[in-house]
Amino acid sequence: MMLSPQEKRKLMINNIQNSIKNIPNYPKPGILFRDISSLLTNPVAYADSVALLVEPYRDKGITKVVGTEARGFLFSAPVALSLGVGFVPVRKQGKLPRETISEDYQLEYGTDTLEIHRDSIKPDDKVLVIDDLLATGGTIAATVKLIRRLGGEVNDAAFIIKLSELEGEKHLIDQNICCYSLVSF
Amino acid sequence: MMLSPQEKRKLMINNIQNSIKNIPNYPKPGILFRDISSLLTNPVAYADSVALLVEPYRDKGITKVVGTEARGFLFSAPVALSLGVGFVPVRKQGKLPRETISEDYQLEYGTDTLEIHRDSIKPDDKVLVIDDLLATGGTIAATVKLIRRLGGEVNDAAFIIKLSELEGEKHLIDQNICCYSLVSF
Repeated sequence: MMLSPQEKRKLMINNIQNSIKNIPNYPKPGILFRDISSLLTNPVAYADSVALLVEPYRDKGITKVVGTEARGFLFSAPVALSLGVGFVPVRKQGKLPRETISEDYQLEYGTDTLEIHRDSIKPDDKVLVIDDLLATGGTIAATVKLIRRLGGEVNDAAFIIKLSELEGEKHLIDQNICCYSLVSF
Repeated sequence: MMLSPQEKRKLMINNIQNSIKNIPNYPKPGILFRDISSLLTNPVAYADSVALLVEPYRDKGITKVVGTEARGFLFSAPVALSLGVGFVPVRKQGKLPRETISEDYQLEYGTDTLEIHRDSIKPDDKVLVIDDLLATGGTIAATVKLIRRLGGEVNDAAFIIKLSELEGEKHLIDQNICCYSLVSF
């Protein structure tokens, strides 16, 4: 039986979705955690998830991929390698050794700080942001601000998982970021 | 001019080495930090470094790649994808959502703890450990213990950078681990 590209994509997405484990009451009571570590140990689902993240951005002139630590690195770095462009890490405060700029972002309680190397993005860079999961969009909004402060153009962010009820996509559309995700919960 | 495979490899290694930045007095006075973030933004050097890490382990029956957060993920996950095998993350305490086992390891002052999911390694797994940098070998020795406690076979660890004077390789040979690195300082 020959599958159409659409049918093949649907099977790949189903396999990815089925390889994500649901962990009730983690990290605290009432939260259903979506665990991508079980996706990583499934080599077909992992390779497919990277291939599907890359697909919309081939031939779009992307020059850099930016990803946030630590889980985000597991998808953003392979996407950069697959697109054949440079990878730029965004990290928590104090983890990058050269001159950085930083942005604070809101957590449920208090704030946290993200940093990027000042020399990592050039004004003619066209940047794609990749992360494992879109929740409220706070870390990605801060990441977008860092990229734009360095003069980079960024219009797109892509995710394995979108948690629809947290409205992160709406938050990022307000920042003129177009979101793409493989699986929604 | 046609290059021999050996000449080509030497040029790749030179390019990788030149793309690593040296940061004096980071994270504290007297330390010369080897910064791989500048390697990541060079797409040729980054792709070559993954290809060279993979090369010795093709057709060796590796079934899983294990990597530690966060910088280690940037090389270990692409190596797993390139070998077409599952990836297993080792993380700091409290970061993995399912049942874990843990190992303490020595830092310069005090100890830290690494964890792995209990169900991530099977007794018939043949595991390759990948990290960005071999210093004293403490995190890799703890990682090897975690894999062996779960019944996995592990004989090899590969790194972008080896800091020779810290004798991490000797430490790991004592654990029956064969080390491979692309660049030595």
